[in-house]
Amino acid sequence: MYKSALFTDFYELTMTQGYFLQNHNPRVVFDMFFRSLPFGGGYAVFAGLETFLDKLKSFRFSDEDIQYLRERGCFQESFLEYLKEFSFKGDVYSVKEGSVVFPQEPLMRIEASLIEAQVIESMLLNQINFQTLIATKTSRMYLSSRKGKIMEFGMRRAQGADGAMSASRAAYIGGAGATSNTLGASLYGIPAVGTMAHSWVMSFDSELDAFRRYAEIYPENTVLLIDTYDTLGSGLENAITVGLELKAKGKPLGVRLDSGDLCYLSKEVRKGLDKAGLEDAFIVVSNELDEFIISQLLSEGAPIDSWGVGTRMVTGGKDSALTGVYKLAAREHGDSMLPVMKISNNPAKSSTPGIKQVYRFFDENGKMLRDMIALNDENMTEQGPLTFYHPMYQYKTFTLDDFDSVEPLLSMVMENGKTRMKSESLSDLQARCLRELDRMDESYTRLLNPHGYKISLSKELKTMKFDLIQKNS
Amino acid sequence: MYKSALFTDFYELTMTQGYFLQNHNPRVVFDMFFRSLPFGGGYAVFAGLETFLDKLKSFRFSDEDIQYLRERGCFQESFLEYLKEFSFKGDVYSVKEGSVVFPQEPLMRIEASLIEAQVIESMLLNQINFQTLIATKTSRMYLSSRKGKIMEFGMRRAQGADGAMSASRAAYIGGAGATSNTLGASLYGIPAVGTMAHSWVMSFDSELDAFRRYAEIYPENTVLLIDTYDTLGSGLENAITVGLELKAKGKPLGVRLDSGDLCYLSKEVRKGLDKAGLEDAFIVVSNELDEFIISQLLSEGAPIDSWGVGTRMVTGGKDSALTGVYKLAAREHGDSMLPVMKISNNPAKSSTPGIKQVYRFFDENGKMLRDMIALNDENMTEQGPLTFYHPMYQYKTFTLDDFDSVEPLLSMVMENGKTRMKSESLSDLQARCLRELDRMDESYTRLLNPHGYKISLSKELKTMKFDLIQKNS
Repeated sequence: MYKSALFTDFYELTMTQGYFLQNHNPRVVFDMFFRSLPFGGGYAVFAGLETFLDKLKSFRFSDEDIQYLRERGCFQESFLEYLKEFSFKGDVYSVKEGSVVFPQEPLMRIEASLIEAQVIESMLLNQINFQTLIATKTSRMYLSSRKGKIMEFGMRRAQGADGAMSASRAAYIGGAGATSNTLGASLYGIPAVGTMAHSWVMSFDSELDAFRRYAEIYPENTVLLIDTYDTLGSGLENAITVGLELKAKGKPLGVRLDSGDLCYLSKEVRKGLDKAGLEDAFIVVSNELDEFIISQLLSEGAPIDSWGVGTRMVTGGKDSALTGVYKLAAREHGDSMLPVMKISNNPAKSSTPGIKQVYRFFDENGKMLRDMIALNDENMTEQGPLTFYHPMYQYKTFTLDDFDSVEPLLSMVMENGKTRMKSESLSDLQARCLRELDRMDESYTRLLNPHGYKISLSKELKTMKFDLIQKNS
Repeated sequence: MYKSALFTDFYELTMTQGYFLQNHNPRVVFDMFFRSLPFGGGYAVFAGLETFLDKLKSFRFSDEDIQYLRERGCFQESFLEYLKEFSFKGDVYSVKEGSVVFPQEPLMRIEASLIEAQVIESMLLNQINFQTLIATKTSRMYLSSRKGKIMEFGMRRAQGADGAMSASRAAYIGGAGATSNTLGASLYGIPAVGTMAHSWVMSFDSELDAFRRYAEIYPENTVLLIDTYDTLGSGLENAITVGLELKAKGKPLGVRLDSGDLCYLSKEVRKGLDKAGLEDAFIVVSNELDEFIISQLLSEGAPIDSWGVGTRMVTGGKDSALTGVYKLAAREHGDSMLPVMKISNNPAKSSTPGIKQVYRFFDENGKMLRDMIALNDENMTEQGPLTFYHPMYQYKTFTLDDFDSVEPLLSMVMENGKTRMKSESLSDLQARCLRELDRMDESYTRLLNPHGYKISLSKELKTMKFDLIQKNS
């Protein structure tokens, strides 16, 4: 959907025409990275790559698109002719989807002509920023539920149709077990789930009648919503009646709570179900959940079996955007690639120059030790004491005496516009995410005030960066 | 995009099959409304109606959709046959797009068979919740800029492709003058705008060279981004050089600030431009703006001419979802329509029963006085003292002795599945929104701690609601 290459910021097109008319189209390298972690957390989960690559392959200007641009009055015919034939023919390096990532380190590296790399910027950021945000949010909920059963129920409050669709995909990568979004389930192969709404109950003459009729049709999958009228009064009582009828036929019962004090109510409902002999009946809760509420409910001993999470999972709640950026890191100059950077009075807003790779170091138990951003042609695989330099403060260093293994995070996923990536299923991506969460010390995955995982520069890269800053000041 | 009727929560389909198999498909009335205002504000701007109606008209199950459902194993062939022929043939009543609206009052009323009304719920909420959120947010920025020039620059941080597209549409309704989203501009007829990125500046050997080359190509529309290296050092100086060259040719100059203390920098830049004789040059700012930052900058006298707003406009920032809901209000029972309601221990979560209309009362200056939710068959147009009842607290009433005029807010926009609405351009909708903002007392549009605009029930409706609560308790 929205496959048109007009899905780009207008300035990408005016700049691109500028490059074209000036015959200024050197080979360049752009980095995609973000500057700070969302949700007060200690890590992010990279997502959206495959969606981005799919869009990139069909990123073309149709005749109508060209006509629209012509009517703006600021584009020349020679440039419009160029756009007619436009397709992305560059190289893309990327971290794998489902990987755990951190601020400052390049998550993607685009190597292409200046025009090609520039015109895809907005679309790339749009796709990667959002899915990474949602995969990260969901992984936090997954961990806070003690790796429990999380269901994504967010469509109705999502930000538009694709806000729902992309969120279903990213939430699954981040650890959701299922979605209520039927189209998302269908397109991405995610299990589709659902219970019942208040309107089901209200459309019948009595709550008991409504419950019974549901159980008749879905005896294998009866999850009764018990808070339409009076949760502990009529709702629980009627659910028990139907639950016993189901039990007599050897069928299971579930109940859902969607309002009120979920801790108190879940405990009372559990007691009531157990007392009636429905020890196997399970309890689902929903209603504006997030990782903090889930964590609190479990720490108070709420007997909840699964979690329907909506709004805050699919929008990110208060952190509704990942602030990923796309910055020029090198450009062709004569025979070589010249490293370049954006310099800011605010060190956090300065970028890191050069063509880079990110290395991740592990200990003998496979736990992550730290990441180092290095120049692409450095060799990091040798053992031995290694000095890590802080990306902003020249005087801060750290030495790693020993490590067990090291892995480069960026690999080529597109070459000359053609995908070079082994296709992976969405459940492969989820498996990677869950595996990577396990490779982090728990201090990094803590919900609040996590330990900061260290991202450093190699000596060579640090020297290049600070030399460039000095040259420009 | 995403036209499939699978774009619905899975439980809508399981419930719908339940209704179908039980031959339980009465005529029903659903209300769409929200319970609380976003952003701590005093009003919301209704948006998304036309997008919703367009989707509704093409809301169909394809053969592939049916096959997907068949493979779930829980749907019977007779129901799948029914879905094959499904289309929405009900009636839709709605508030007009661009209207100012308030909590509790029905913004839309759906009258259809239970199955039809149920299956469209998730899609309706997905569309209306998001666009209403963004139109509201943008109108707040428009007002805080003192009805200034606001440009929507949000695509790269928007929640997926449609997060960008729907946001461009809704932001324009809410008062944005232009968008950077080229596809949005093209599809919705919004002016497309853009300046330059840091990468333009960094791709040339010097900042001055970069500025000059841009001015050569876009002499009528040169807005130079001056913070790539050193805003008040090189950036301003080079912009003045190019500005004077443009001035000699009778061409305008604009500069953009995208980082740092925008108040201080805009004042210094203004001084520098004026001193150089570039009094006509204008200043654009961007960088994580919202209504509070805009308001503060203007109150400190920052000489800013226009505002590029991104993330917080297109995602809503910390309030990333409108909590709109869709509740059953009446159902066919024998020969009449039986009013029904969801009853909650929390009065704010109880719905209001019956088939309703919303009336808005105005004073002799056309200013809004208050809204009353009434039964659809009540006559509200007569003059005279009128008693208003609080929607939740039975003892709270208010009498309006006099008013100049009264308007019903809900009108039929679809009848038997066919659109019955006069088509309006997006700029008509924006004009309505700006007109309605003017019809509110400023105490209601205040950024923080606004005066609460009163929404009341008519006597008849209040009596019906409290009788129903009593009957159920």
